[in-house]
Amino acid sequence: MKKINLYITLKQGVLDPQGKAVQESLHTLGYTAVKQARVGKYMELIVEDDANVEQQIEEMCTKLLANPVIEDYTYIVEEGIVQ
Amino acid sequence: MKKINLYITLKQGVLDPQGKAVQESLHTLGYTAVKQARVGKYMELIVEDDANVEQQIEEMCTKLLANPVIEDYTYIVEEGIVQ
Repeated sequence: MKKINLYITLKQGVLDPQGKAVQESLHTLGYTAVKQARVGKYMELIVEDDANVEQQIEEMCTKLLANPVIEDYTYIVEEGIVQ
Repeated sequence: MKKINLYITLKQGVLDPQGKAVQESLHTLGYTAVKQARVGKYMELIVEDDANVEQQIEEMCTKLLANPVIEDYTYIVEEGIVQ
């Protein structure tokens, strides 16, 4: 099995209301050292060993998991996962 | 400035309906090699250089960013970020 750690973030320049809300809440709690907060998605996928897992990840991201217009994605593949 | 990469995931054993929905959607699209999907939050915080940034992160997580009952969090601090 392989484990895919997938990070989906908003593209630079895209408004991040959720991030803004987190930053303001942290300021309210007194953590004024926080200058910016951006919120994204983190996914862990367990997949069977497959020859073209990289190609499948790209397809899954563009078709479903990330919105290519406003989001970027990066991923790390961990080999030899025992499930 | 420092950049904190924060990963918030559901604890093992906690039901993950969002992950289940992602897995079933991927199966519907034909990606049956996906055996499990778990969805969490990924945050990027830009913070001023501060002596006790590690302690502040722990406090911010337990007070606001992560629910200690059902979520785990891990983070990586990147030094010397130019903003």
